[in-house]
Amino acid sequence: MPAKRSVPPLSVAVIGTGLVGSELISQLLSLPSPSPFILVALVSLTGSLFSPTGLSVTKDTWRSTLKASNAKPDLQALVEQLSPLDRVVVVDNTAAQAVADLYPEFLRRGIHVATPNKKAFSGSQELYDQILQASKESGARWLNESTVGAGLPVVQTLKDMVASGDKIKKIEGVFSGTMSYIFNEFSTASPDGPSFSSVVRVAKEKGYTEPHPADDLNGADVCRKLSILARSIPTFQNALPEGYKSVANRSLVPPALESVTNGAEFVDRLNEFDAEFDKLRSEARAEGSVLRFVGVVDVEQGVIKADLAKYSVTHPFATSLGGSDNIIMFHTERYSPRPLIVQGAGAGAAVTAMGVMGDLFKLVL
Amino acid sequence: MPAKRSVPPLSVAVIGTGLVGSELISQLLSLPSPSPFILVALVSLTGSLFSPTGLSVTKDTWRSTLKASNAKPDLQALVEQLSPLDRVVVVDNTAAQAVADLYPEFLRRGIHVATPNKKAFSGSQELYDQILQASKESGARWLNESTVGAGLPVVQTLKDMVASGDKIKKIEGVFSGTMSYIFNEFSTASPDGPSFSSVVRVAKEKGYTEPHPADDLNGADVCRKLSILARSIPTFQNALPEGYKSVANRSLVPPALESVTNGAEFVDRLNEFDAEFDKLRSEARAEGSVLRFVGVVDVEQGVIKADLAKYSVTHPFATSLGGSDNIIMFHTERYSPRPLIVQGAGAGAAVTAMGVMGDLFKLVL
Ligand SMILES: NC(=O)c1ccc[n+]([C@@H]2O[C@H](COP(=O)([O-])OP(=O)(O)OC[C@H]3O[C@@H](n4cnc5c(N)ncnc54)[C@H](OP(=O)(O)O)[C@@H]3O)[C@@H](O)[C@H]2O)c1
Ligand SMILES: NC(=O)c1ccc[n+]([C@@H]2O[C@H](COP(=O)([O-])OP(=O)(O)OC[C@H]3O[C@@H](n4cnc5c(N)ncnc54)[C@H](OP(=O)(O)O)[C@@H]3O)[C@@H](O)[C@H]2O)c1
Repeated sequence: MPAKRSVPPLSVAVIGTGLVGSELISQLLSLPSPSPFILVALVSLTGSLFSPTGLSVTKDTWRSTLKASNAKPDLQALVEQLSPLDRVVVVDNTAAQAVADLYPEFLRRGIHVATPNKKAFSGSQELYDQILQASKESGARWLNESTVGAGLPVVQTLKDMVASGDKIKKIEGVFSGTMSYIFNEFSTASPDGPSFSSVVRVAKEKGYTEPHPADDLNGADVCRKLSILARSIPTFQNALPEGYKSVANRSLVPPALESVTNGAEFVDRLNEFDAEFDKLRSEARAEGSVLRFVGVVDVEQGVIKADLAKYSVTHPFATSLGGSDNIIMFHTERYSPRPLIVQGAGAGAAVTAMGVMGDLFKLVL
Repeated sequence: MPAKRSVPPLSVAVIGTGLVGSELISQLLSLPSPSPFILVALVSLTGSLFSPTGLSVTKDTWRSTLKASNAKPDLQALVEQLSPLDRVVVVDNTAAQAVADLYPEFLRRGIHVATPNKKAFSGSQELYDQILQASKESGARWLNESTVGAGLPVVQTLKDMVASGDKIKKIEGVFSGTMSYIFNEFSTASPDGPSFSSVVRVAKEKGYTEPHPADDLNGADVCRKLSILARSIPTFQNALPEGYKSVANRSLVPPALESVTNGAEFVDRLNEFDAEFDKLRSEARAEGSVLRFVGVVDVEQGVIKADLAKYSVTHPFATSLGGSDNIIMFHTERYSPRPLIVQGAGAGAAVTAMGVMGDLFKLVL
């Protein structure tokens, strides 16, 4: 009769101990006891720990213990180690396609997957379908709140809307923290302002961009996030055969700089194109607008695109946005005429790990 | 080994078939099959249906079937009927204290509770403690996303922050759709504007207020929502012995009208106080601000209050808010210096029911 008296803890296997992974481990190992989780595995590129009854590590010792491990990381071995466990989740904190490719295997064996890694959900339709299928067959779940907006409640909000029968009309937002910062600085309501290249330079110096800023300016990250959202909407579930590559994209990387492989050189040469960006900004200003790099999933129009677009200075993308915040608007049948809006930091290790923790808590509710 | 293969559906018992209840039943009975839920009970003030194997109703027939039932509603009988079921949730769509008072009993017997009814979580500390205790002992869960901001992701967002170790500094927001509408109309960036009483009159005519507008203007609804949020924060878990009554409140009901029991008469006499509200608006405008009725949970200052406050015309509460939207800002250690913001309709049957559906989906993840 009782619902869930004395459920044993959920076993957690963590792959990837970079910025997000470290923070996740720290949050996990800082929970008050009794914790609903036990950490059974840690895997980085250089080391590997596994114990089916829980690793003997604390938030102060896990790193040195992992470093001292002599075991070579072997993901196929991990699959075998985790399979016999009763309730287990893999947390993938890498950006690796190789790990993403294993999700169907994990899921097929009843191992849940929780991850901020966008690769599996924004790549080929084939991998995505395998994930859906494996999850359906075994009942194991995949959770990816942090892939869009980091810790902001975006993915679950959309899933709940769809599952409860709301009709999504349009999702529109600033999905890249880097692009948000760049255009919040470059294009404001007040006239004049810094050159585009100088804004990108400062962003790079502050560590807001990837080592090579073209990896932000090319729009691919936004297209990946749009794939993830679009595929959660029935109309678009099969609309993107190649995932993010099938999204209509406007790269801001000047064609002449596409072959520049060095980030510093890229930034040095970007000023050759300042006049172009200036012109776009002036055109926007003449209309009482600012420029924002946005992602749009428009169900009614059948459009999924990343684009540099103009928004009135009175629009929330102009008035409300600041820093490197994300902002996401959901226009739906129920949230109409006014959308549901979520805004805040859309990157950073602490908030990203928090989003993953939220996914883990769902599994032990 | 597999996680959750072929879990039987979750039994759902619905109490209250008003605006939200009807919509919830409709959403529940519109899910594609196989549904993870079976509807086992419907209880209104006038009728009652129960079948442990699922009611034979559709979204088109439930109302007439319930109407035709000869069974008198009996909540204690419902407790006994549900107790033998394996996995069951009660959805309380009433505003009744009598139903709220039963939550400890439901939970003790392993019956989950999901509800938009604020009463149980914003009343006496004693009832709240009994709920926590009963849930802890049996493992049955209570879920109340829709009690604050209806379908907006507010309660779960806060719970995830707290559970994952974020430190809440301050929550600040416009929590009443009615108060939002009234002050969005009454106090804008542009000079002049309608009188307070005329705005309240229109709000009542549009059906945005309770039958007696004093039930909105007295701030109690905001205080209830603040209690729910505050009690989710460890510092404040025991800070409100009498729940919403312990919140510092600024009622906007003129003392001279407190004894007016008729809503229409109340509105007719409200113009006697227009000068007072005009004065407040002018004072705000002189500072470049607008008036908003807000709720604040300030952990650093140890303050929980509902208040009429001034916000700069450039603040999101002035620029971004419209209609009868709610807006909620979470200032936390991780969301700092810029807060996480959620905005959108904070009332309405469809979005409220959607929030409850989201809670139900959590139980079948
Ligand atoms: N940082 C953010 O703000 C943010 C926000 C949203 C989403 N995300 C996503 O979160 C994920 C992690 O981001 P991050 O910032 O933490 O990146 P990161 O610091 O570069 O960490 C990635 C880690 O993955 C590990 N790794 C790579 N390939 C691996 C493999 N095959 N097997 C085992 N480990 C492997 C690396 O291990 P070593 O430590 O051994 O080198 C590295 O530490 C990415 O998918 C990213 O897109 C990040
Ligand atoms: N409407 C919103 O936008 C909104 C938003 C957030 C939260 N909520 C909350 O959601 C709840 C429902 O709101 P609502 O707008 O749906 O109210 P409503 O239309 O007045 O419906 C309440 C229903 O509860 C039933 N009821 C009352 N006492 C009962 C009892 N002891 N046993 C069984 N049934 C009982 C009534 O049954 P009968 O049908 O037989 O009269 C009535 O239909 C309230 O707690 C409200 O605060 C509402």
